[in-house]
Amino acid sequence: MSEFIPPGTRFHLLPPTFPMKRGGALHGARIAFETWGELNPARDNAILLVTGMSPDAHAASNTGNPAPGWWEAMLGPGKYIDTRRWFVVCVNSLGSCKGSTGPASINPATHQPYRLAFPELSVEDVADAAFEVVRALGIERLACLIGNSMGGMTALAYLLRHPGSARAHVNISGAAQSLPFSIAIRSLQREAIRLDPNWNNGDYTEDTYPESGMRMARKLGVITYRSALEWEGRFGRVRFDSDRPDEEPFGMEFEVESYLESHARRFVRRFDPNCYLYLSRSMDWFDLGDHGNGDVLQGLAQIDVPRARVLGARTDILFPLQQQEQIAHGLRLGGCDATFVPLDSPQGHDAFLVDIAGFGAPIREFLAQV
Amino acid sequence: MSEFIPPGTRFHLLPPTFPMKRGGALHGARIAFETWGELNPARDNAILLVTGMSPDAHAASNTGNPAPGWWEAMLGPGKYIDTRRWFVVCVNSLGSCKGSTGPASINPATHQPYRLAFPELSVEDVADAAFEVVRALGIERLACLIGNSMGGMTALAYLLRHPGSARAHVNISGAAQSLPFSIAIRSLQREAIRLDPNWNNGDYTEDTYPESGMRMARKLGVITYRSALEWEGRFGRVRFDSDRPDEEPFGMEFEVESYLESHARRFVRRFDPNCYLYLSRSMDWFDLGDHGNGDVLQGLAQIDVPRARVLGARTDILFPLQQQEQIAHGLRLGGCDATFVPLDSPQGHDAFLVDIAGFGAPIREFLAQV
Repeated sequence: MSEFIPPGTRFHLLPPTFPMKRGGALHGARIAFETWGELNPARDNAILLVTGMSPDAHAASNTGNPAPGWWEAMLGPGKYIDTRRWFVVCVNSLGSCKGSTGPASINPATHQPYRLAFPELSVEDVADAAFEVVRALGIERLACLIGNSMGGMTALAYLLRHPGSARAHVNISGAAQSLPFSIAIRSLQREAIRLDPNWNNGDYTEDTYPESGMRMARKLGVITYRSALEWEGRFGRVRFDSDRPDEEPFGMEFEVESYLESHARRFVRRFDPNCYLYLSRSMDWFDLGDHGNGDVLQGLAQIDVPRARVLGARTDILFPLQQQEQIAHGLRLGGCDATFVPLDSPQGHDAFLVDIAGFGAPIREFLAQV
Repeated sequence: MSEFIPPGTRFHLLPPTFPMKRGGALHGARIAFETWGELNPARDNAILLVTGMSPDAHAASNTGNPAPGWWEAMLGPGKYIDTRRWFVVCVNSLGSCKGSTGPASINPATHQPYRLAFPELSVEDVADAAFEVVRALGIERLACLIGNSMGGMTALAYLLRHPGSARAHVNISGAAQSLPFSIAIRSLQREAIRLDPNWNNGDYTEDTYPESGMRMARKLGVITYRSALEWEGRFGRVRFDSDRPDEEPFGMEFEVESYLESHARRFVRRFDPNCYLYLSRSMDWFDLGDHGNGDVLQGLAQIDVPRARVLGARTDILFPLQQQEQIAHGLRLGGCDATFVPLDSPQGHDAFLVDIAGFGAPIREFLAQV
């Protein structure tokens, strides 16, 4: 069981009892976060950034940690999200292993890691925990709430459960509910972990670690995070270097296989498998239709935010573009001035991490009007 | 090790030594096939059907086996491929476990199953073996060669290696080479099997069978054979019946998960895992560019067939539509009168098995002109 906390991370202690949506409560839980820029005296220049499933709160370099973050090119002084103007807060999701309390954290009741004793995690819990951080920083109302991927779900839950909490919203490659293709992919990722004998119902150690299961899960993730189009350009049918042949029967031969392997190997020991399972399942459960008598548009229409911009990539197969169009449509039904920005980026679901100019320009333009 | 041979299957013995493209040879190998209709005295009404990766030769009910086949609605008297007019031959691929010689068959040199001692299998070998069956039936020139999915690859290899062997060709959801997305998916399927400790480098038994690995591989297959669009309509976010709850931690909850599970369970014991590995890898290797100085269009242009029709579904993510467009384009460069028929079927790569009317009508229309 490991947590992976970047240097310079700050922490907010949640209330002594933090109730969870699906039952149970956390006691003495905390949320990891980082900030960029300065909160102005009017406290009206704050942006909250909620993340995809696996990133930590280190979105970009800052005084506490000069290492580049996962959105380094997007966020900073003079960048698309300009921290000379905005005070930006990024939180690590509740349930993660990057500083916030999650299944890999110590359960104060037992002094052992929670593992599967962690209560069922929902996206709504992740949103509520983020809201607590914002309030603790003295921010009554966000200038903008930005969410990417799973963070797009978190942001919608945040806005729905905390009316009037933001003047504007940017939803990037998000969804108002999980559809069966994405559920099927994530279910298979979880099954790969569960089938690894080392997973052992969540009771593994560093020495008996479900490495194969995590590797399979991550490879399937990376396959579905990108697009066939991008890979054709990047890898084609190139074989990988003959100076590192794979002698296993039916072993790797193509560059694309080698890329997946090295990418997965880097990830496997840097994300806790139980946390992966909890966060993955929370996305399957997410459905704004639960708040709209089963109708996702009705759920979206209940969200109270004056302005929004919804971005997505045409090549995204995991959170397909019609889901972003649906978010914009549903928000408009609730009276929001929502614009939908479809992008031609070839990088699929991950495009917002790669096509910085493509996503950054419409984000900057939108923020200029907030 | 098991072979799964439908009743009524016929067999053709390949030449005593059958050389394999990548080296080695088979001795005393056989190909399973079935037929429908009658070969006319001029022997010019024969259609050869080459299949996807897993089907057997029982494409439809016939006198030898009245059970419905995998293309029952397409093939038969008065159907889209009308067996009152056409003499149809369907072969089980070399390397398969449905009657043709493959890794699950007995190696005459050792009297034991080949397992991984089977020589490396290429799509070209599958094509050459099918060609032997056609010749043995006294057919000099096919009226039409029809290939689906992997069979679309087999058909292209057949036509390239045996010039003048067919008057017409129908290529359905096929490809002239494998692209990195498809390679990545198949590589992960093979890895799931290889990681199952029961696979044991191919040395498993009925009692120690790589069931988990095969189940994972098949689930990933089924996910990529269909489309997100179709599943949204079929499954939505429906939970499965509460009278069969999955009590495992992180167990199944949604109908789409239950569908995948039951589908995979049916398949797992009906297809030999080593055969799966051999056939899967043969598709990754396939590249008509090998016959065109690295240029797939140049490879296609070398194919000598007077007329062709190329069909595919817009929702296919595994053999995407641009690959069928490419086949038609490349065949035309070689002087073929080739038509490209894109279809809106929502069922993805598997659409040709489901949207019989959508695929059947343009096939019937094309055959009427042969």
